[in-house]
Amino acid sequence: MKACNSESPTPKSTEISTVGPAKIANPIAFGRFVEEDDAVLVNISRRTVEGNPKSRKKPEHIYFEPAGPRDKIYYDPSKTKCAVVTCGGLCPGLNDVIRAIVMAACHEYKVPSVLGIQYGLAGFVPEQGYDVVELTPSFVSRIHEFGGTVLGSSRGPQDPEVIVDALERMNVSILFMIGGDGTMRAAATVVAEIEKRGLSISVVGLPKTIDNDINYVSPSFGFDTSVETAAMAIKGAHVEATGAPWGIGMVKVMGRDAGFIAAQSALSCQEVNFCLIPEDPFDIHGEKGFLAALDERMKRRGNAVIVVAEGAGQDLLAASGKADASGNVQLSDIAALLKKEILEHFGKQGIEATLKYIDPSYIIRSVPANANDRIYCSFLGIHAVHAGMSGRTGLVISRWNGRYVHIPMAVVTRGKKRINTCSNYWRAVLESTGQPVTMKND
Amino acid sequence: MKACNSESPTPKSTEISTVGPAKIANPIAFGRFVEEDDAVLVNISRRTVEGNPKSRKKPEHIYFEPAGPRDKIYYDPSKTKCAVVTCGGLCPGLNDVIRAIVMAACHEYKVPSVLGIQYGLAGFVPEQGYDVVELTPSFVSRIHEFGGTVLGSSRGPQDPEVIVDALERMNVSILFMIGGDGTMRAAATVVAEIEKRGLSISVVGLPKTIDNDINYVSPSFGFDTSVETAAMAIKGAHVEATGAPWGIGMVKVMGRDAGFIAAQSALSCQEVNFCLIPEDPFDIHGEKGFLAALDERMKRRGNAVIVVAEGAGQDLLAASGKADASGNVQLSDIAALLKKEILEHFGKQGIEATLKYIDPSYIIRSVPANANDRIYCSFLGIHAVHAGMSGRTGLVISRWNGRYVHIPMAVVTRGKKRINTCSNYWRAVLESTGQPVTMKND
Amino acid sequence: MKACNSESPTPKSTEISTVGPAKIANPIAFGRFVEEDDAVLVNISRRTVEGNPKSRKKPEHIYFEPAGPRDKIYYDPSKTKCAVVTCGGLCPGLNDVIRAIVMAACHEYKVPSVLGIQYGLAGFVPEQGYDVVELTPSFVSRIHEFGGTVLGSSRGPQDPEVIVDALERMNVSILFMIGGDGTMRAAATVVAEIEKRGLSISVVGLPKTIDNDINYVSPSFGFDTSVETAAMAIKGAHVEATGAPWGIGMVKVMGRDAGFIAAQSALSCQEVNFCLIPEDPFDIHGEKGFLAALDERMKRRGNAVIVVAEGAGQDLLAASGKADASGNVQLSDIAALLKKEILEHFGKQGIEATLKYIDPSYIIRSVPANANDRIYCSFLGIHAVHAGMSGRTGLVISRWNGRYVHIPMAVVTRGKKRINTCSNYWRAVLESTGQPVTMKND
Amino acid sequence: MKACNSESPTPKSTEISTVGPAKIANPIAFGRFVEEDDAVLVNISRRTVEGNPKSRKKPEHIYFEPAGPRDKIYYDPSKTKCAVVTCGGLCPGLNDVIRAIVMAACHEYKVPSVLGIQYGLAGFVPEQGYDVVELTPSFVSRIHEFGGTVLGSSRGPQDPEVIVDALERMNVSILFMIGGDGTMRAAATVVAEIEKRGLSISVVGLPKTIDNDINYVSPSFGFDTSVETAAMAIKGAHVEATGAPWGIGMVKVMGRDAGFIAAQSALSCQEVNFCLIPEDPFDIHGEKGFLAALDERMKRRGNAVIVVAEGAGQDLLAASGKADASGNVQLSDIAALLKKEILEHFGKQGIEATLKYIDPSYIIRSVPANANDRIYCSFLGIHAVHAGMSGRTGLVISRWNGRYVHIPMAVVTRGKKRINTCSNYWRAVLESTGQPVTMKND
Repeated sequence: MKACNSESPTPKSTEISTVGPAKIANPIAFGRFVEEDDAVLVNISRRTVEGNPKSRKKPEHIYFEPAGPRDKIYYDPSKTKCAVVTCGGLCPGLNDVIRAIVMAACHEYKVPSVLGIQYGLAGFVPEQGYDVVELTPSFVSRIHEFGGTVLGSSRGPQDPEVIVDALERMNVSILFMIGGDGTMRAAATVVAEIEKRGLSISVVGLPKTIDNDINYVSPSFGFDTSVETAAMAIKGAHVEATGAPWGIGMVKVMGRDAGFIAAQSALSCQEVNFCLIPEDPFDIHGEKGFLAALDERMKRRGNAVIVVAEGAGQDLLAASGKADASGNVQLSDIAALLKKEILEHFGKQGIEATLKYIDPSYIIRSVPANANDRIYCSFLGIHAVHAGMSGRTGLVISRWNGRYVHIPMAVVTRGKKRINTCSNYWRAVLESTGQPVTMKND
Repeated sequence: MKACNSESPTPKSTEISTVGPAKIANPIAFGRFVEEDDAVLVNISRRTVEGNPKSRKKPEHIYFEPAGPRDKIYYDPSKTKCAVVTCGGLCPGLNDVIRAIVMAACHEYKVPSVLGIQYGLAGFVPEQGYDVVELTPSFVSRIHEFGGTVLGSSRGPQDPEVIVDALERMNVSILFMIGGDGTMRAAATVVAEIEKRGLSISVVGLPKTIDNDINYVSPSFGFDTSVETAAMAIKGAHVEATGAPWGIGMVKVMGRDAGFIAAQSALSCQEVNFCLIPEDPFDIHGEKGFLAALDERMKRRGNAVIVVAEGAGQDLLAASGKADASGNVQLSDIAALLKKEILEHFGKQGIEATLKYIDPSYIIRSVPANANDRIYCSFLGIHAVHAGMSGRTGLVISRWNGRYVHIPMAVVTRGKKRINTCSNYWRAVLESTGQPVTMKND
Repeated sequence: MKACNSESPTPKSTEISTVGPAKIANPIAFGRFVEEDDAVLVNISRRTVEGNPKSRKKPEHIYFEPAGPRDKIYYDPSKTKCAVVTCGGLCPGLNDVIRAIVMAACHEYKVPSVLGIQYGLAGFVPEQGYDVVELTPSFVSRIHEFGGTVLGSSRGPQDPEVIVDALERMNVSILFMIGGDGTMRAAATVVAEIEKRGLSISVVGLPKTIDNDINYVSPSFGFDTSVETAAMAIKGAHVEATGAPWGIGMVKVMGRDAGFIAAQSALSCQEVNFCLIPEDPFDIHGEKGFLAALDERMKRRGNAVIVVAEGAGQDLLAASGKADASGNVQLSDIAALLKKEILEHFGKQGIEATLKYIDPSYIIRSVPANANDRIYCSFLGIHAVHAGMSGRTGLVISRWNGRYVHIPMAVVTRGKKRINTCSNYWRAVLESTGQPVTMKND
Repeated sequence: MKACNSESPTPKSTEISTVGPAKIANPIAFGRFVEEDDAVLVNISRRTVEGNPKSRKKPEHIYFEPAGPRDKIYYDPSKTKCAVVTCGGLCPGLNDVIRAIVMAACHEYKVPSVLGIQYGLAGFVPEQGYDVVELTPSFVSRIHEFGGTVLGSSRGPQDPEVIVDALERMNVSILFMIGGDGTMRAAATVVAEIEKRGLSISVVGLPKTIDNDINYVSPSFGFDTSVETAAMAIKGAHVEATGAPWGIGMVKVMGRDAGFIAAQSALSCQEVNFCLIPEDPFDIHGEKGFLAALDERMKRRGNAVIVVAEGAGQDLLAASGKADASGNVQLSDIAALLKKEILEHFGKQGIEATLKYIDPSYIIRSVPANANDRIYCSFLGIHAVHAGMSGRTGLVISRWNGRYVHIPMAVVTRGKKRINTCSNYWRAVLESTGQPVTMKND
């Protein structure tokens, strides 16, 4: 019986900090303001709601604060300057988030200025010499039709003191940081430095991850688009596999520690026979190993499609020992290993398998957001502006149980989300692929 | 102050009926079975969870039963015959649902036969002479790459006695009905007739609506795809509007009683200036009316894009008095009225406006499902099979608060979902379009 | 035996005028210049090449001048100002042509200024008050990713004197006119006025038509893209037709006098059963008429897809008597007539046909150009600049027999291209649809 | 001054062989038959048509025979059996060609049987055990919606005696061979073997090459589709390049000996800065080398997009010495070399360039054909049937100067088509990229 991955850890506190009391009437013209006692239950299954029936202890209910406009805001819009920065790798929807922030700040709150910090946190460092961009509604008007980020991005942290110096120098009141868990951790240090200096600067995070592996962010923006694009590559692999005798199509997709793209695109295509993810270790050789299962499939059906997440099977490879500027360990190439092993396996039997390998790589993250992600990103950006204007800080905007919520940065940076290999979700993948429940020799 | 639409009515009972006790061990090989006391809270805001703090009454919690496989099932798979029928208008994803049902029944439960009833409920009527199709895994293998339904569809009810006669004659144990609220009401009468006859036949519904207007189905399958397609038409309207002096692009989209497609595609495009929906009545003339607002926009910016749901502004038109076979009243043509009024309005001022009208009509519902809908439909189909095999009946499969659930048919057919015009969602549309909060003269 | 449409009329003269002798060395750095005696044979079939074997007369060979850079140019690039105008209805690729002209003029010839005239010929008229746009390489850099024209367009002629006044006032040396046959006729009057005044201004035309009906332009730019988009609508009609009992899908596409879009998209889809075009008159009633053929198809196969060009069957309708600003007679609605007749025809037999009508209208002309058209438009724009810089005037750029050529404006405006209904091309359409060779009762 | 590549060699003979005299009246119902003396001039420039004006020698005109139906055919349709085989690597449009052959044979000529040979020439070899497929109109009806080939394919030659044995055994009258130049050479040996045995079997070739490098095939089917798909990958590279400081996007595309995909997709994207092809050798180092040019671009604009054909710069690499089953030499990896050199070049200057490498590989050849290729493939298939039925053999179907023609196999297999680096076409690429005319030192 294999071990399951645990779910996201229950947050201890979901309270959101503020830079000060909100006293100014919100100028936005219409709609309902979020009511003070409104809150979104985090865990909605009956057991958590009702608590242990045998215990006398009242069940403890944990809530997230709903996102949305408040009737009182902290910052005086006419004197507020905002700044936006995009960090880490590209992801579909970055321009949509930027656009939504600018539109909401300028049109709803009439904020006079939104600055764009170029090339990630490096853009705060004077020595780098990157200009700051004035993000006007007209400038951002059509950027959502392009992939990538109009601001540029870069990896790696920067000194929080340098960042806060820059914020002070530029008179920024609200900083919107779009980035991965590394960026959210950097954001927390910026918040601490701001607090230390006693400044009234809000920092609002917008969690970004092509791997969909951030806790309580479900799914992350751009994920749907990247799955759609990965599915196209898989479709190609299927065509190649069925177009040759002993045809095998193999596709490597992103997914360092979590196999969401691999699993979701396998579900979407319905033509995948093996989905290999980091959360589900496997053996290559042995009676129950991957090659045995592939051998069985090939002899039964004559072709196979394999989708492998880049982080799958890393235990089978020598560690590369290298890391990128964000501190991500450079992965060893599981696809190369599998390719070699597969061809050898069939070669020994005198069978010349035709293996076609496709690595869509950056194609899946550089496309513009699809309609679904476009709308999602708009809401994230709008809600980030509402949160910032209300004086909230140290939080991220997310969607949970179908509602937009505020989550403390500390909650989303504690660990990473994984596919639970005991879940119905993973079972659906196994059903769809028809691969063995485990390819581990006990 | 305009009236808001109320939210979906709170269900009175969420209990699911069964045709008998489930006593057979579930043969599916892996994954966790749904535990008996698991349940999904329907309303997850703090007030409902905690109840009125001033009252001593314990808050009442309403749950939906989670979808998924049970450890015991009712039907003996080796003796089970399933049937699938698709009813009403087309919708992206129908073939995906059919495929998922067949794959889950045949591969997971080893059910020997799944029948396809052709052309909707008419397919049950011997006089119509439609053959029944044997839906094998090989037959359905690639149907998800095509739009529409491989079974064909038709509108209108049929005598439940005739339907149950046919089910008896064909020895069907589980009937999967894919259709709109009319179909779900028909399903309820079939359930009643089955019960009256004391038969062991389960009926599982899969709610379908291009308009996304079914209660507790959020969103309905295919909606995402249709929005994506509608967005393409709107993009064309934007190009036309900006390509001519005094250019106006107008797009009519589906949405009889609810403007979800109009609103969602407006959000997705970010280039719409007026979004007209059934839920938000407007005047054409008068100081605050639509023409005044359009006039202001045109004189300020020189062009405008209008998206109008087919059901918008019906109070401005003489009722057509006709209805289709499903009982849907035939709508009067709001787009034709608007076109006439707009050209007259500017004509009187000596301005020759260039109005380009686009009606994507059936294009948006006949496309194949996108990746997102494809996955959604797969899960709906799989869960329908789990529900049916467990002996449940009279229910529909839906997703609520991010989880797949069982909902009694009576709950989803009570009224229709509407856009709440006081919600943050509608406010986001208004922000995105920049149209007045109301275009009603008091 | 029905009459065939004749081919494009043989041009009398293919000589291109110039504003003066080209004496300046061409500054472009690389590539081969077009040699003086190079020429492209217009009619390449053996009979034309060899002439009548029985006659002693030497065969007369007609050539088009090849497009491309000349070693000598007329205009001194450093003192040259260009202008671009887009006229008439939208068409995929307009922005690509504009971009290519600007890039070639600015980068290859180092022309200091390219002006954009807004909203068609109206942009030359001072009373209209449209600003002139400075088209820099940076401004046009990404416009090809959008449909439509960044300059705007309008219909209708303007006084050539007013246009030449404006060209003189702005010091324009080369005017690039992108438009249909009406625009090319207007261009000819501008050329005449320039000549009358003895000015050194070149006018180069780029023929545009969504209907692909200009002589010696084969195909026109954007045609491929519009066919691709029309095909999508037809695919939808096919899905609808096969998704209902007695299902009929009908799509109306552009094509006022020529059915190229209808025919080409029918060939592309391979799922069309009737393709109705202006060149092939048909009867609705009678033994051989359309309804009889449709009746036969429906009873044999149960569904049908009809593609009808907007200009088809106009003889069956009362003339509308109206015309648009370009002088195009407003067509009567053949689709509405067909719909009515079809439903009546089957209704009389007690059959309730399900007819789904799709009019993609402006969607097919407002999309961005596909890869193929993008390249085509680039070459058209580049060659237009080469032609203009060499001092040529009164010509259009086209592709003939696979090569880019110069054609006198008079040649392309003489009559319109039609589908030859005796050609192998039309036969391929008939084969693909399976419709009768004629639906005319003798 | 660098050397140009020569154009395709002038064919010595363009006469098409037949298996015997065509005496049977063609049964197809409509359209014009090709007239006996019709012919398409091969070289249409004035000099070839007129001949040397100084010489008294009459110019020699070379013609291709036009494709199309003849009034007399050789095979009696009711007794004719056809066979289709697809060989070599996949290419968009294979299924469209198969479909068109089946439809034309069965519907136009009422041929009773079209056989599908599976997995290329290997399918003729009894030892391989591949079943022959009966290709009915119903079987092929929707195959054009899928990429790849429904018949499967394989590489490598087979003994022509074995192939002809199989044709005799199966009573095949006409064999349609779809494949690259290797396949066309194999076809020629099959034709020779048939002739040697005195059999009445026609062999008609349909030239296929993803690289577009077959003489007198312009362009090859599927090329347009693959360019469209490659353009998508390049767009991603552009997004990545502009999204990072010192960003470089590099895309490798197919093109073993000819850089058509690289050049065409660079033209299509307009965002490529370096296009490296086999026909244009370059140095990496040195004053005029690639790195110097890249360095200049990077310092001027901050980013660059590079498209490299897989066969470019092979002289810079050690030969791999390996070959695949078709005899294609395995190329060394130019992209890996460039990546290493680029990072080192900037690394030495203390600049950390961000190089994102994308290899779309098989994605670009496994997609379904676009509308344009779909129509092209239909005509190729139809004309192949006309040619075969008329008793012609040893020919291929192609399009030349805009007309469909018959070309002897020997003409298309003599050498391969290359990009002429002195042509206006290549100059347009250089203009579009802005790269130096040559990156060769001296």
